[in-house]
Amino acid sequence: MSAVDRLFFGNYDSGNKLFLDEEESRHCKVLRKMPGDKLDVIDGKGGLMNCVLKSYSGRTVELEVIGTQLMPRQRNYRLHLFIAPTKQNERTEWMLEKAIEAGLDEISFIASEHSERTKLNLQRLERIAVSAIKQSAQYYLPKINPLTNLKDIEPDGSVFIAHCREDNSKTKLKDALLKLNHQKEISIFIGPEGDFSESEISRLTSKGAIPVSLGNTRLRTETAGVYAAMVLNALL
Amino acid sequence: MSAVDRLFFGNYDSGNKLFLDEEESRHCKVLRKMPGDKLDVIDGKGGLMNCVLKSYSGRTVELEVIGTQLMPRQRNYRLHLFIAPTKQNERTEWMLEKAIEAGLDEISFIASEHSERTKLNLQRLERIAVSAIKQSAQYYLPKINPLTNLKDIEPDGSVFIAHCREDNSKTKLKDALLKLNHQKEISIFIGPEGDFSESEISRLTSKGAIPVSLGNTRLRTETAGVYAAMVLNALL
Repeated sequence: MSAVDRLFFGNYDSGNKLFLDEEESRHCKVLRKMPGDKLDVIDGKGGLMNCVLKSYSGRTVELEVIGTQLMPRQRNYRLHLFIAPTKQNERTEWMLEKAIEAGLDEISFIASEHSERTKLNLQRLERIAVSAIKQSAQYYLPKINPLTNLKDIEPDGSVFIAHCREDNSKTKLKDALLKLNHQKEISIFIGPEGDFSESEISRLTSKGAIPVSLGNTRLRTETAGVYAAMVLNALL
Repeated sequence: MSAVDRLFFGNYDSGNKLFLDEEESRHCKVLRKMPGDKLDVIDGKGGLMNCVLKSYSGRTVELEVIGTQLMPRQRNYRLHLFIAPTKQNERTEWMLEKAIEAGLDEISFIASEHSERTKLNLQRLERIAVSAIKQSAQYYLPKINPLTNLKDIEPDGSVFIAHCREDNSKTKLKDALLKLNHQKEISIFIGPEGDFSESEISRLTSKGAIPVSLGNTRLRTETAGVYAAMVLNALL
């Protein structure tokens, strides 16, 4: 939707040299960047480095750093999504990509009673996250936590739980968000395809989690994750 | 996220017989439905038919209709999305699936000056739409219009345009929606990867389209389409 300059991703400590890793160097080549060309590198921790391409050597690209900036955070809230991986990996992968585009700070994959998947390729998810922040011009890489058993998780901040059971106490996500005061540390729990169990729901609500409904249609797990990130982005 | 009974899709006029097409009959078989089993069929026009499986014959399944209902519409607004197909087909396909899950009534694919794709597989998109309404338990199939030249489109209702050019007159989508009175016929135009051209934007705004911003990050075309559907769902 936009033709803004591409960003590269790399680690930078100090000094005036920066080396891109193999994958980013390949991107650089594909984009036909030549020695002398300017390019911007982000480190996922807020750093934006303005660089000039010095040389291609082997599988790496050497850059000269000519300026550095610490970019401000782009959101005044923090979203931590707790979600069960879907049976099909690719649905989890696009959920991650889209939630990050809309704004996501941390994601914890959960194993719950009705979970269908107990393995995750974290390295692949990390790569998707890097690519999503580059694409959407963001400077902070979200934290991706490995699969954790739901019963070992102690939620904090403002905690919402989206489940599909009949429950008259459910608030619309919009209304729940409008009631937030200054507490903008938001955790949202989204259940697996088979939903949370009764006991999982009561454990979380007994710890203060507020049951929310995500609209008036039945959403897939991965759609619910993206919905949460997008609605927070639009409302907060 | 839910284990609600699966819906089937089929055409029904009157009488007490209903035949599923080849694809739906196959689903029926995969789910091991047996003669005597009850199942529900939707027709995409609000009809919900309660049926009993009579027999498998050849590639079709014969059902007996034991009850029919006309289901109410689930939304009090109508969303018509105008969007350019993405270079990669699969991105357009998932956008359609997710926008429908969140709530979409009509979609028009547009060819604009910077469009990258001018062909669409409408049959495949129709199948995705049918599957998305079944999955999300909706009763009205959204209308899918073939690729149309943007300059031939005369928008009506409340019209919003999401583009990426610098423009101080842009309103946040949330604020634009809150200003709507009773006019809940909403058209949203979303540009191609290369954005709308200046002249396309001025033509639409001269016809009353309001420029809106979709949050504070840069969204891909397909993400923007889903964002629009989800934010309307959450806010209206």
